[in-house]
Parts: sequence; C-alpha cells; structure tokens
Amino acid sequence: MTRLYLPMPGNETMAETLAAQAGDALGALETRRFPDEECYVRLLNDVSGMDVDIVCTLARPDPQFLSLIYAAETARELGAKSVSLIAPYLAYMRQDKRFKQGEAISSVHFARLISQAFDSLVTVDPHLHRRRDLGEIFSIPTRVEHAAPLLADWIRDNVANPLVIGPDAESEQWVAAVAKRAGAPHIVSNKTRLGDRSVVIEIPDFAQWRDRRPVLIDDIASSGRTMIETARKLAESGMQKPYCLAVHALFAESSFAELSSLAEQVVSTDCVPHASNAISVAPLLWGPAQDGG
Amino acid sequence: MTRLYLPMPGNETMAETLAAQAGDALGALETRRFPDEECYVRLLNDVSGMDVDIVCTLARPDPQFLSLIYAAETARELGAKSVSLIAPYLAYMRQDKRFKQGEAISSVHFARLISQAFDSLVTVDPHLHRRRDLGEIFSIPTRVEHAAPLLADWIRDNVANPLVIGPDAESEQWVAAVAKRAGAPHIVSNKTRLGDRSVVIEIPDFAQWRDRRPVLIDDIASSGRTMIETARKLAESGMQKPYCLAVHALFAESSFAELSSLAEQVVSTDCVPHASNAISVAPLLWGPAQDGG
Repeated sequence: MTRLYLPMPGNETMAETLAAQAGDALGALETRRFPDEECYVRLLNDVSGMDVDIVCTLARPDPQFLSLIYAAETARELGAKSVSLIAPYLAYMRQDKRFKQGEAISSVHFARLISQAFDSLVTVDPHLHRRRDLGEIFSIPTRVEHAAPLLADWIRDNVANPLVIGPDAESEQWVAAVAKRAGAPHIVSNKTRLGDRSVVIEIPDFAQWRDRRPVLIDDIASSGRTMIETARKLAESGMQKPYCLAVHALFAESSFAELSSLAEQVVSTDCVPHASNAISVAPLLWGPAQDGG
Repeated sequence: MTRLYLPMPGNETMAETLAAQAGDALGALETRRFPDEECYVRLLNDVSGMDVDIVCTLARPDPQFLSLIYAAETARELGAKSVSLIAPYLAYMRQDKRFKQGEAISSVHFARLISQAFDSLVTVDPHLHRRRDLGEIFSIPTRVEHAAPLLADWIRDNVANPLVIGPDAESEQWVAAVAKRAGAPHIVSNKTRLGDRSVVIEIPDFAQWRDRRPVLIDDIASSGRTMIETARKLAESGMQKPYCLAVHALFAESSFAELSSLAEQVVSTDCVPHASNAISVAPLLWGPAQDGG
C-alpha cells in the first residue's frame, strides 16, 4: 500500500471514503493556531515513499491556504514519492480576465501557487469560463471529473416528471446532457448579472411544461441569487416548487435559508461539505491523480 | 518619481508616512471579498516602469496572504520594474525547526513563497532564533532594520530612573544595548515556556534596583504571557508598576487588557498597528528595499 489520503481539516469524511473505496491508507494531520493566529501543521504518518493525496476542497480558501502549502511541502521534505491535491471544488476560477485595468487575474496566480506545491491535481467541474481546460493555467497534470451523470441519476431516481432548467445560454450543452440522461426535457434561463449579489432572470415560455416539476441545476451556488430569482419567477408563474441541484454548494450568507424556503428540496454533491449534500462524488475521485497515470 | 508605496488594507498610514518622508508616490489598491469569500484585488495606479514597494505588515497573515500575492503578481504583469515587500513585522519566523516528527518548518515554506513573489524584502527585528540571518531561508535580497535605538530613546525621553528588564538570557545582548543607549542598568529574567500560552518567569535578585522604574522590553508580545507574568512578579515584590515596551504588538486574545492593568503604560512601535503604538519605525523603512541598493 503506497497511497495515502491525507485530509485537511473539514475534509475527513471525503478522505475516509476515498481510502475505503480504494483500499488505501487514511492519514491524519494535527493542525492548530498559535495565539498569534499563525498555523501549526504536523503530519502524523510516515509518508516516505508514499503517493500522498492531500484532500482539500477549496471553498473559502484564503484562511487555510498556507496550512495547505505547509502540509504539501512537509510531505515532500519527508520523502513522499508524489504529493497531489484532490480538491473537489477548485477556487479562484472565476476571475479569469482583467475586466477593469489593474485587476488581478487571480485564477492564473492561484493556479501557479498550486502548481508549485503539488505534482498533480484532481477536481470536479471547475468553473472554466473563458478557458478551455486547466492546462492553460496549471503547469502540472490535472484530472477533471464531471458530476453531470450523478446529478442526472439523482433526478431520475427522485423526481417524477421533471423539467430541467439551466441558468443561462452558456450552460445549455451541460444542461442538455443532464436532462437527456435523466429522461427529461430542458430549458435555460436568460441571466443578466448586475453585480456580485444581483442578477436578473428571465425564463423563456414554459407553458407546455406546466405539469412538470422544475429542477434547477447549476455548477456553483455561491450568492445563490440565480437559483433564488429563478425560483421566485417560477412561483409567480404558478409552477410547482422546484428541486434545486448544485454541484458546488458554497451558499454564501443567508442564501441557503432563502432558497430552501422557495424550493421543494435543495440538493448538492459533497464537493463542498454542506447541509444540502445528497450526492457523493467520491466514486469519481479515487485512484491516480492524473489522467492515464 | 519612480517609486510607489502601495499599502495592503490596514497599512495605509505606514505607506502614507513612507511616501511623504521619501517624497515618493503613494498608491492605492481596491480590495473586497466576493460572496464566496474569495478576494478581489485591483491596482489603482499605473505601475509600469515603477519600483513598487508593497507595504504589508504580516501579523495574522493567513487570511490576507493570497491578496498580497495577487497584488505583487499583478504589479509585475503590469510592468513594474521591481516589486518589493515592506513588512515591518515578518510572520512565521518562530516555527524554525522540527520539534516533533512530521512538523512543518513553516519559516522555510513561508520564506520560499515570499521569495517567489517579491524581488526583495525589508523588515524590522525578525524573530531569528536558530538562524543567523534571513539569507538562510529567503532567496531574495533582504534588509533588516532594528528598533532597539528607537526603544532606547523612548525610554530615555519618557521614564525617570529606569531599570530595563529583558525576557530571557538569550535576549541579553539586545537588552544590554537598549539599556546602554537609554543610560540605564539592565537585568534579564529566566523564562521557561510550558506551552503556547504558559510561561514561568523568575526575576533574578533586584534588591539594589528597588528605587528604579522597571521597563520590560521584548521583540514580540504575542500571547503576552512573558510580560504579564513578569509584571505580576514585580507587583508581588513591591516594585513600581512597569512600563512595557514591545517592538511587535501582536497581543493575542485579552492579553493587552490584562497587561495594561498591571503596567504603568504599554508601548509599542507601529510595526503592527495597535492601540499601544507610540514609536514610529517609518524612519527606518523608506528608501531602496535592499542593502546598498
């Protein structure tokens, strides 16, 4: 046994599941904060000669970033054969262009920092917007897994007579694939983003689908505004309460409570640990951290 | 004018002072958090061809670390001639050895991250314990300034008949230099550290100094335990309330309130912005970021 799954704080359940599925070892870290709020990191396993897969979803990455780097560097110093990152949610993918003069393109900088610390990366549905693949910004091998089939199967198994609704035109291909596998029709909204916490949603004519149960799907629920505004429009139109499915359940501020009050059920994968988790991506994540590796 | 002082949030006063002293330009950043708590960074100045000195003290570095790196990388991308870091307080200097198997030697990892992002570093009294100089862990030029003369001058100007008291034997050379310049005698305590928040202090016989005003000095006040326990011992011995001077006023948790109740006055430099700041290190910090540069 040469592979060790090592969870950063909050990622213990995912690491346990991966180790159990793969028949590999589960490691542990000791972490704490000194009184001055600097972080302390200690690897509790012998990592010499091991392939170390650090499991760390990257929702709200800033406060934990240095601990993560220290864990990776320490594993390397102590003789790990490889040090990979399993990040079911990958941060800083959305600031991928200088929209205004002087803006940091943080997706590039973040990818560089991760590439310097790790030998490879595994993630699920990164928010690739203007980029075709992670290889444009990461200099290490990456493996991208897709949650769409898992969402589709959950819809098929749990929702009678569904209508799958995507957030915007850009998502149509992805939405169509989920709907097809779920055996359901689909439509997409028109979304206009006015600010970090403000969107305008228009839902195209859905008169022919009045008898169906709306199922909103999206890759990331962050401010939650897209799903909340869509659910409001559906309610105004007299549709049934929707199911709301997100791959990455960030749910900032009070958005989860707000959405829950408008939804039949809010469902997410466990890419980001959250009360709404109902679909495990673990079957996608174990094994070598690079394609064909 | 080719030098620009660019403050990270919370460092505006220091950057203003440096720019005014040096007759150089003062820059500005726009920063905020997205709903998902990722950081947004935007440089508001044209940095092309400029020597950019980012001013960022590194107390409680974890939550702001990525913003700092993004600011530096963006300045470089936008044509800065050089990008230096002025960090009056330098973080992660204290975990400089693997005390237990598996521990991260974070001072090395942190130094590497800073060295990758900046061309040079200026700091004040880094906590060099087992290392002789910053060059052992930083691969960029560094300039270290010393607050000892400023502490000494403050004591000379503000305390009648002082006795300077240092925290431990290791500090004696530094304490002696401060005392000499202040024209005062000095002693040092014996300190035994039992944990992050627990120390035992013994003060050697000071019967001959009973008429003097104790002045406790230290480089960092973090948990504050060293100064608090020393002040308690002095009170038990019937000495006058001490003045307490620290270079770096971290003052975790309730330590500042606790120490204030035992002290005549708590005084610090502005390396870390704090209510106790009374001594400015700005005169030490401006100018080229590397020795002889």
